[in-house]
Amino acid sequence: MPRPRRGAARRVDRVALPDLRPDTDALLGRVAYLKLALFESASAVAGRATDLGDREAITRVAAAVLEQHTELSSMLEDRGIASAAAMHPFTADIDRYRRRLAESGWHESVLTLHLSAGLLDDFFAGLAAGLPGPAGGRVAEVLERDIGHDVLVGVLQQGLAADKRLGSRLALWGRRIVGDTLLVARSALDDVRDDAGLPATTEERRIEPVLNDLIAAHTRRMDRLGLTA
Amino acid sequence: MPRPRRGAARRVDRVALPDLRPDTDALLGRVAYLKLALFESASAVAGRATDLGDREAITRVAAAVLEQHTELSSMLEDRGIASAAAMHPFTADIDRYRRRLAESGWHESVLTLHLSAGLLDDFFAGLAAGLPGPAGGRVAEVLERDIGHDVLVGVLQQGLAADKRLGSRLALWGRRIVGDTLLVARSALDDVRDDAGLPATTEERRIEPVLNDLIAAHTRRMDRLGLTA
Repeated sequence: MPRPRRGAARRVDRVALPDLRPDTDALLGRVAYLKLALFESASAVAGRATDLGDREAITRVAAAVLEQHTELSSMLEDRGIASAAAMHPFTADIDRYRRRLAESGWHESVLTLHLSAGLLDDFFAGLAAGLPGPAGGRVAEVLERDIGHDVLVGVLQQGLAADKRLGSRLALWGRRIVGDTLLVARSALDDVRDDAGLPATTEERRIEPVLNDLIAAHTRRMDRLGLTA
Repeated sequence: MPRPRRGAARRVDRVALPDLRPDTDALLGRVAYLKLALFESASAVAGRATDLGDREAITRVAAAVLEQHTELSSMLEDRGIASAAAMHPFTADIDRYRRRLAESGWHESVLTLHLSAGLLDDFFAGLAAGLPGPAGGRVAEVLERDIGHDVLVGVLQQGLAADKRLGSRLALWGRRIVGDTLLVARSALDDVRDDAGLPATTEERRIEPVLNDLIAAHTRRMDRLGLTA
């Protein structure tokens, strides 16, 4: 699958997290686990597709997410850290997030994949810009790859065209996704110190523009689907 | 993950299907779907692992199976055939096979992955030798790759060491797997004509050695785990 890269500059501009100094191992562990969890969700969504073409196409999305996981995991191993150990502190929170979004119809799960990956990739690519050394650029490069969002959008558009009631269900579900996913992003900021050594989340004033940018990108994704954000 | 290739000659020797002329598109479609189904099973097994290291390791197995699926699917597309269309005739049988083996404990599912992939890779790599042109060699090369059987064996050995009752459960389960999996292999022979244009399954005499070879390899896999086949 061709993976057109979006401009890194644009992404880092959009989710600017200036002066924040995330811990490299914690960030890698958290995002590696998010990607492992997202891979499992994606392959489960693929397996539930009734159309064999959709099933294969979403399996490609799962494969792209898995590749992201594998690269982040290799980065940890290159740093001499077992990826399971690095991911472990983040499993409980992320599993809770997954469970909250798990009980849903198939189209809802496709939407979750699209919106959750979109928002978290934006956020963590921005946060990675503050990593020391070349790690930040590499993490951002991995997260900025297109995992196949057009496939997911296409499947959703087909579903929306076929079932007039799906739109209101998905609009409602989209609001739930954005709320829960912002909490995942926010909890990553608890680990992060600003240049004065304070937890980033103590400064609402600095975080608010970041969250606003994430919400604006989310709204554009919903708009593209013709859904009210 | 390094993938030591086993010798193609040895594999083709072991499961010799002389004079059989399988249909290329049918064989590719069947094996591509088997691999898609096996990938989904593998990623579900990974997701159910309680140990995060096992979960990552089995995810690598899933990724290797997915790569096999993707390559077979590309071969179909290169032949101008949509892979979903080529896979479609085989979904009902293979889904039935999966359902029969689905309801099991976690270690049983790991064993299913190990034995089912082992037997079917042996069988289809042998059958592919009869394909015209370079397709046979390429299919055999894809199927002869090690998907990570040592990882699965390691997980099973750990489970067997920790729980003395697991051995008899797995021995029983192994017999069920081999029976059901041989049926999957056998049903592929229904499509295949021999050099006289007769369905291969009409000649028990010729098929029996093939099945015996598959069972012998299965028994070696069980022996390695200390289980009675």
